Amino acid sequence: MTTTVWRNGAFVEAAGAIDATDRGLLLGDGVFDTSLAIGGRVFQRDQHLKRLEAALGVIGIPADGAEIAAAMDALAAREGNGSLRITVTRGPGPRGIKAPADVHPTILGSSAPLNAGAMFAPIRLGLSAVRRNETSPLSRLKALSYLDAVLAAREIEASGATEALFLNTRGTLACSSLANVFVVEGFELATPPLKDGVLPGILRGWVLAHAEDHGLRPIERSIPKKALDQADAIFLTNSLRLVSPATLTGKADSADVPEALRRLMAGLCEAIAAECGTDPRALGAAL
Amino acid sequence: MTTTVWRNGAFVEAAGAIDATDRGLLLGDGVFDTSLAIGGRVFQRDQHLKRLEAALGVIGIPADGAEIAAAMDALAAREGNGSLRITVTRGPGPRGIKAPADVHPTILGSSAPLNAGAMFAPIRLGLSAVRRNETSPLSRLKALSYLDAVLAAREIEASGATEALFLNTRGTLACSSLANVFVVEGFELATPPLKDGVLPGILRGWVLAHAEDHGLRPIERSIPKKALDQADAIFLTNSLRLVSPATLTGKADSADVPEALRRLMAGLCEAIAAECGTDPRALGAAL
Repeated sequence: MTTTVWRNGAFVEAAGAIDATDRGLLLGDGVFDTSLAIGGRVFQRDQHLKRLEAALGVIGIPADGAEIAAAMDALAAREGNGSLRITVTRGPGPRGIKAPADVHPTILGSSAPLNAGAMFAPIRLGLSAVRRNETSPLSRLKALSYLDAVLAAREIEASGATEALFLNTRGTLACSSLANVFVVEGFELATPPLKDGVLPGILRGWVLAHAEDHGLRPIERSIPKKALDQADAIFLTNSLRLVSPATLTGKADSADVPEALRRLMAGLCEAIAAECGTDPRALGAAL
Repeated sequence: MTTTVWRNGAFVEAAGAIDATDRGLLLGDGVFDTSLAIGGRVFQRDQHLKRLEAALGVIGIPADGAEIAAAMDALAAREGNGSLRITVTRGPGPRGIKAPADVHPTILGSSAPLNAGAMFAPIRLGLSAVRRNETSPLSRLKALSYLDAVLAAREIEASGATEALFLNTRGTLACSSLANVFVVEGFELATPPLKDGVLPGILRGWVLAHAEDHGLRPIERSIPKKALDQADAIFLTNSLRLVSPATLTGKADSADVPEALRRLMAGLCEAIAAECGTDPRALGAAL
């Protein structure tokens, strides 16, 4: 089986696409973005591009925004319904951590078919002993290093969990290995602020912007660990799974998803239909 | 200019050596090792191989130790006098963080000519606002993600420093972006224990094992930030620069390197000569 990826302006074979001196590989010197394509259109496309450009600004990689947009659009057109990943690295460089004077970023894109079954599917969370390091700007970016998440997945597997949940170094809630987290109490949807070490997730942003339309009160605030026990519900957001009802290992599964949250999920489906032309429920997303 | 690297058993062109689905690139899923070759022999070769195997054990990459040793020996033979880097990743994989059932690690090696001028050269340290995350096992490995160090280098540049120094999340001393750190008070050489979020550096190990031979008392203990102000001297250790006298920005340069530390450096040169056949001072290392 051969895999084809986008690299700096064209589709190429994945095998041999990358230089062994690429700083993305050697130093994790790059960022990425994951997005949902439906009908060849990326949901919240401009928000994804804006966040990726902001991240590149933070780490100082001078990649061309138009080239990144071209990659995203080419992948969406190719995949139709699916997930897209754009990776941007500082490109090849000489030995050492000092960035080269003349940077040639690598813009790499890949796509995979839609996994509609993952949308809105419940998740069982296990609390990791590793803390999210909110003192690092990387805690607010999709930086290339996901090894903490890879290791945490192994750490919590034995407990029957499928995804790791992280507190930050101050002991308040941060995020899961793949998603932002919200805690529901009554009609309030609380999620940690960015300073607590979380990614400005695109779906997180959508929920914060649209929760009120569905009778919910969104709020960004630091969340103590004990709030996880007291919550009416917990849910995760990410661009591919959308909204995932979540339970912590060791706790009973919540009987059902609160009605207001169900309305929010339906509203999200409608927003996707409005933006991309097709409702995810028509593609197999189970609500 | 073409660059040649070692990849899984042979030297190949760097351009095109890496698959775009390699988890080392996409997830930072791998570790590396940097070592010094003199006269075609790696100083502390077995210690480097042992540490790399231990790191691979921690993150669960089933790479073959003999293949890694072969890479190291081939690079040392090629370069003669120089620096070697071995990178081991979990290899290509499908989308997502879950490791594939069938792992084919990528063993990548590169080398560069000796920079003897960097050996024993003084370093000016700037304290980074980013903390070293000692709650993560990655803080004790040479994991592929060095982006915190890349960003910290930019952060401290304006202060005239050339290297970032990190405290851990508890506020005690950890390490610099490229080296272990020791604090000298009288005849005592103190360095943080591994649990404080530091790499078991090979040169750190050498100093701990041999300091007593030179009239010094080595000790591993947590070091409060204020000890940096009170120290008689600070020095860094890494495998390429060996022992680097260091000063913090904002402090006066220390008048000179303590005599006992100078004896330790000379002892290290002798150990390298004994193990590799040539004294670094004969290659331009200035003591």
